[in-house]
Amino acid sequence: MFQSFEVTARPEQGPPRLSALRAELGVEGLDGFLVPRADAHQGEYVAAHDDRLAWLTGFTGSAGFCAVLRDVAGVFIDGRYRTQVKAQVAAEFTPVPWPEVSLGDWLKEQLPAGGTVGFDAWLHTPDQIAQAEETLKGTGITLRPCVNLVDHIWEDQPAPPMAAAKVHPLEFAGETHEEKRKRLALTLQEAGQKAAVITLPDSHNWLLNIRGADIARNPVAHGFALLHDDATVDLFMATAKLDGLEDHLGPEVRCHPPEAFLDMVQTLKAPVRVDKQTAPVIVADRLADAAVWGADPCALPKACKNAAEIRGSAQAHLRDGAALCELLAWLDAQPAGSVTETQVVGQLEAARRKDNALQDISFETIAGTGPNGAIMHYRVTEETDSRLEEGQLIVLDSGGQYLDGTTDITRTLAIGTPPAEAKAAFTRVLAGMIAMSRLRWPVGLAGCHIEAIGRMPLWLAGQDFDHGLGHGVGAYLSVHEGPQRLSRISQVPLQAGMILSNEPGYYREGAFGIRIENLLVVRTAPALAGGDDHRAMLHWETLSFAPIDRRLIDVSLLDAEALDWLNSYHALVAEKIGPRVSPETKLWLDDATAPL
Amino acid sequence: MFQSFEVTARPEQGPPRLSALRAELGVEGLDGFLVPRADAHQGEYVAAHDDRLAWLTGFTGSAGFCAVLRDVAGVFIDGRYRTQVKAQVAAEFTPVPWPEVSLGDWLKEQLPAGGTVGFDAWLHTPDQIAQAEETLKGTGITLRPCVNLVDHIWEDQPAPPMAAAKVHPLEFAGETHEEKRKRLALTLQEAGQKAAVITLPDSHNWLLNIRGADIARNPVAHGFALLHDDATVDLFMATAKLDGLEDHLGPEVRCHPPEAFLDMVQTLKAPVRVDKQTAPVIVADRLADAAVWGADPCALPKACKNAAEIRGSAQAHLRDGAALCELLAWLDAQPAGSVTETQVVGQLEAARRKDNALQDISFETIAGTGPNGAIMHYRVTEETDSRLEEGQLIVLDSGGQYLDGTTDITRTLAIGTPPAEAKAAFTRVLAGMIAMSRLRWPVGLAGCHIEAIGRMPLWLAGQDFDHGLGHGVGAYLSVHEGPQRLSRISQVPLQAGMILSNEPGYYREGAFGIRIENLLVVRTAPALAGGDDHRAMLHWETLSFAPIDRRLIDVSLLDAEALDWLNSYHALVAEKIGPRVSPETKLWLDDATAPL
Repeated sequence: MFQSFEVTARPEQGPPRLSALRAELGVEGLDGFLVPRADAHQGEYVAAHDDRLAWLTGFTGSAGFCAVLRDVAGVFIDGRYRTQVKAQVAAEFTPVPWPEVSLGDWLKEQLPAGGTVGFDAWLHTPDQIAQAEETLKGTGITLRPCVNLVDHIWEDQPAPPMAAAKVHPLEFAGETHEEKRKRLALTLQEAGQKAAVITLPDSHNWLLNIRGADIARNPVAHGFALLHDDATVDLFMATAKLDGLEDHLGPEVRCHPPEAFLDMVQTLKAPVRVDKQTAPVIVADRLADAAVWGADPCALPKACKNAAEIRGSAQAHLRDGAALCELLAWLDAQPAGSVTETQVVGQLEAARRKDNALQDISFETIAGTGPNGAIMHYRVTEETDSRLEEGQLIVLDSGGQYLDGTTDITRTLAIGTPPAEAKAAFTRVLAGMIAMSRLRWPVGLAGCHIEAIGRMPLWLAGQDFDHGLGHGVGAYLSVHEGPQRLSRISQVPLQAGMILSNEPGYYREGAFGIRIENLLVVRTAPALAGGDDHRAMLHWETLSFAPIDRRLIDVSLLDAEALDWLNSYHALVAEKIGPRVSPETKLWLDDATAPL
Repeated sequence: MFQSFEVTARPEQGPPRLSALRAELGVEGLDGFLVPRADAHQGEYVAAHDDRLAWLTGFTGSAGFCAVLRDVAGVFIDGRYRTQVKAQVAAEFTPVPWPEVSLGDWLKEQLPAGGTVGFDAWLHTPDQIAQAEETLKGTGITLRPCVNLVDHIWEDQPAPPMAAAKVHPLEFAGETHEEKRKRLALTLQEAGQKAAVITLPDSHNWLLNIRGADIARNPVAHGFALLHDDATVDLFMATAKLDGLEDHLGPEVRCHPPEAFLDMVQTLKAPVRVDKQTAPVIVADRLADAAVWGADPCALPKACKNAAEIRGSAQAHLRDGAALCELLAWLDAQPAGSVTETQVVGQLEAARRKDNALQDISFETIAGTGPNGAIMHYRVTEETDSRLEEGQLIVLDSGGQYLDGTTDITRTLAIGTPPAEAKAAFTRVLAGMIAMSRLRWPVGLAGCHIEAIGRMPLWLAGQDFDHGLGHGVGAYLSVHEGPQRLSRISQVPLQAGMILSNEPGYYREGAFGIRIENLLVVRTAPALAGGDDHRAMLHWETLSFAPIDRRLIDVSLLDAEALDWLNSYHALVAEKIGPRVSPETKLWLDDATAPL
């Protein structure tokens, strides 16, 4: 079983560790030290070695940081984690609402007489440090790179991950790494840049057609890379990980131990592209005047999947959809009150594992029944595990990592007869999800321009939800992948081949949660009779196939086009998933996909 | 009659003027000179004195500029004017597609050996010059402020406008200028700024509750102002214009001749806020290090209309709607082929003038029948004047300036029986217009986040239109007012009190045009039963009332909610406009607003 239900937050462990860290402040002559959640690769998941924030504070969320001063330790957490943090950290830690309160503003308030705050220059980006320094101008407070004080005091700190990397087959990658390197080198040449620094593992793993297992849930091998304008690459990765990859990488990819990275960065000829939002600040410091800010050159090409990646992803989704349907059919057969959330998670993981293609789950399955469903990032533990009771809704958000693709799907299910207001809200969420799925839009628009389409039915009823409509998804890579997003802050134009989730929701605190999620791939839209000849447009192709709970749909709230879409979608689910499930599940599926 | 149908572009006048200007280049030791459309106030309309671009080139569009070099003269025009410019300028001028080609890039290509290009530092903004200089870095091409060479050679240049300013009554302004000055001074104090430079006439006219008549269509008095953090104002405006305003302005508004402006700018204590997108570059140069970039402090407060301004605008719209209905009823009584575009414009202006409240039209009425309707900014002249023929659609876009408000309304009308494809497109445009009118959305969103709602019905049919969905509108001020916009580039959050147009359209070149436009005001949305208690939302209140041509609506393409909206809207039109029109028009109105 990949997922564990262990309670890992132990608030009482925090205070002694905090005291030990404060003792180090004295030794180093510092007034504070920053402990981020991030590792040097700014990933959403971190290895046990890098889980410093959780170790120090007890807080296990996927974003945030702690600013430890001599008298106060602020834990900066965003809206998703305001409730969770209270349960996970001891009173010695002070939750700070972030980004409403910035690090700079908080430091100004806490250190009125000025002071020096240390940070590990591997774990912060130039953007983060520059923003804080801008706010701190003229205050007498300075930020200073220093050794990592947590690593100093963490006696049983796990070793850095050292999992073997492996070749990602061309069958799934669709393009050799030589082709990718040449294609990207051309963009460097066009920009007059000699090289680009690549510090995100999913970027260089994608570029070199390799995958790894250094962290849970994301099949990546940690390391750094330099892409040169001659299409060669210097890869900085522990030698042990690369055993047997010599032939695959070839002579144009030169391998070095990670320790050699900074020295080589320092010798690069200017100008060198570096991403100020993702690279460690130490890298930018070493580049000094040679640095020019620019996006990671792999980010956009990686986001635009090629035909093989889309084909693979579609295959992975059929396999994954069949596993989910087995679970849904099983769940429907259980009487209300007889099953708990952890059982649902376990049963679902078992269904996904059945055909041996599953490499990992793509994130911790969210299975929240009743009030737990209203906690957007709920992770069930032994302590919170709840029975699925009559009249409740359960939000089930899960995904798998397969060699041919990464999946992420959410269904909300009725246990027994749902309350009328939940049914109405579900139908509005569905109407938004369908409106986005049916959309066709002109080339050039970004997520911020079309996200409203998926929210409008809720808005008209005075409702909304506090997360983005969708995120990018990788091809056997991160389940949260940039730069594409369906969010009000995303200004990256959508392009053919991008995979995104479409997941509107609705959350009533203390009562119920609703979310419906499919993955979609952006496609060039075919011309329509009567349409504008000269206007290039895009539309979506749906990748995810599983029934949407008919018991939660109030048909009177859907317009004719939306109902047509739903019935057509269900017919496709029956056609594509039917042949892949057990006979009992097939019977269930026929009912679950019958026209409304 | 305010509007004229005169053909003002005379291509043959351009070449001798161009030669004369080039002779001046030699005298000044320049390789080029920039001639913008804008005056020192960056307004959309300019006085005859400032109409240098049209005088030199013949091009009469509302945006663009000419870069005169020794061998080539580029006329930079945006997509709206690509056809028009060809008809208006002689072969000695070269149209340049802008902003696709920037000034900097074009100069690099035209002056490979470098050179010095002069410009009038009153007519360009710091942003414009900085952008060009950024592009020109390292090319050897420099931009140099100099005297205005057009003014040198323009022998019969009209004098600068000198119309009397008048008090804008408190009844319509809703807030004294003392209250406004104090409110805005507070924002300067909070930002630690000593003063702000105000160069936009609608900003200082709004601030001081005055109006003027220095240019057509916009009721503003030209001048400059300095708002100090003690809430006093220095106003730089020709003394003759301010005759009789002493009591209204009072001792806290000190008046000076315009010539004193730059000298006082130079003596201001730092920091001084100046808007780099609208102020003349000469002002920023004189401020030098004292300048801090920031938005014009009047822009946002002016955009958020108070209760008196909204009440006034609503009144103006009823008066204006009645006048438009008189025209529509008259037009419907004319046989196809019997009326021309200029007659429609004349008849409409006469209807608006009838009750003597009309101060001016708010822009040149667009009346384009058949293929002319597909030209988005069509201005009918004696040469283009066309008959309204059977089977055509006519786009009629017009507005009035009244003391209590500014109007802007578009209706598209069928002459006889419309073609099926025009009817279908009209209905989709209407569906988008209704969807936006019905919208309710969370506080914090900007135009870029919701504009798609008004386009979606067209998108689904493979169609779209190439202008924004809507623009801000002033209160007896500019009909195009920032910063609020319903556009994919507008990131200014919408706020209660803002007035915007909602005007989707569709244009088939050579065949027909469609546009439907109402003005809407943003209001705080009332709570809905079952809605989120904690979520503040906004919605629209419609200001414009006139029938939407029922002959152009294919009811089968509207959903039930849209049809309900339309019938309710028409019932309101009948109720509000019916009592204001002639008996014959009332009969027509009853038919035109009957339920569908």
